[in-house]
Amino acid sequence: MDQLSRSAGTVRPGGRTARVRAAVLEAAQDELVERGFHGLTMDQVAAKAGVGKTTVYRRWGSTPGLVADLMNELANQSQPHADTGGIEGDLRANALAVLAAITDGRLGATFQAVIAAATCDEQAAEALRAFYLRRIEEWAKAVHLAVERGELPPGTDGGEVIRAVSAPLYYRLVVTREPVTPQDAERSVARTLAAARAGAFVVPDP
Amino acid sequence: MDQLSRSAGTVRPGGRTARVRAAVLEAAQDELVERGFHGLTMDQVAAKAGVGKTTVYRRWGSTPGLVADLMNELANQSQPHADTGGIEGDLRANALAVLAAITDGRLGATFQAVIAAATCDEQAAEALRAFYLRRIEEWAKAVHLAVERGELPPGTDGGEVIRAVSAPLYYRLVVTREPVTPQDAERSVARTLAAARAGAFVVPDP
Repeated sequence: MDQLSRSAGTVRPGGRTARVRAAVLEAAQDELVERGFHGLTMDQVAAKAGVGKTTVYRRWGSTPGLVADLMNELANQSQPHADTGGIEGDLRANALAVLAAITDGRLGATFQAVIAAATCDEQAAEALRAFYLRRIEEWAKAVHLAVERGELPPGTDGGEVIRAVSAPLYYRLVVTREPVTPQDAERSVARTLAAARAGAFVVPDP
Repeated sequence: MDQLSRSAGTVRPGGRTARVRAAVLEAAQDELVERGFHGLTMDQVAAKAGVGKTTVYRRWGSTPGLVADLMNELANQSQPHADTGGIEGDLRANALAVLAAITDGRLGATFQAVIAAATCDEQAAEALRAFYLRRIEEWAKAVHLAVERGELPPGTDGGEVIRAVSAPLYYRLVVTREPVTPQDAERSVARTLAAARAGAFVVPDP
């Protein structure tokens, strides 16, 4: 049992493996926030986490491996989609959750570091893609419920609606480097909803 | 006269200063594409451009200085907004121009390298912001013309319409790391236009 729980990828809550993983991922996130992906080193993460270097190398392999596991853990810790009973409330909750995440000192800096890493490292890119596709899939359920309630046209693509709410916020954050405010979140919801109600997110059956 | 044309920032087309600047910016772009911002060095750019190191240091100061001048030059070389006579055609031209830029091997890699640099360097962030704000301002004119023609409601915010067309493309490129296709460009235009026609981009007078 102890043998099993210590094998790679297996986390027993409260067990030694879980504690080591939590310490290493926290140290990796600290280093990402402070130094960026190019400043991230396995040795420094091991030292900061108080864990042997060989453990860190054996279990995570490389710094992109650390980033991938960190993004996986952040996705695990993320909230399920809102269910306010109306699509406007749900999309607003989504936009405000995205805003809160990207403007949070630690979480926002983590996303930006991984976005930067993904421009030059395929494993980091894959970790980023997996994280966002999980979040999009989760929130798309709120759109599907709205279609069932008759709030949006049948055939509305839930994932595309969720991408459309997030896109203008990330665009300001990492492309035009403009401030991202609650007003931007509200506007993104209003514009996405206007397009969705007009049927612009209906995707024809393949 | 020769003295004047060689002072920092002064470019005489065809003159020695212009030739040096063109060679240095081309070398800087090559290095950005090949090695990313963290692999960019003043010495390597000088060597590749066949220009003395002291010239490069004196004129551009640092690698973020090179990036800023490169983005400035890319903005100078960019096309004016389309004027097809209709807002749908103009926004389609905009979306396809963005798509062509970000999927171009050299130009797309340049943007991604500068987006990555901007996450950890304020001068690179400022260069990126200045580039996109110039492009947004240029294309916003096409939206203003559409308002004058009565195609879109009075008070429609042209800059916001242009941001909305680009945002989903960049979101897929650098955040969700999904493929960006002509279909994504078409969908972005259709959705933005549906929202704009519904008045969702009308910004109240301050």
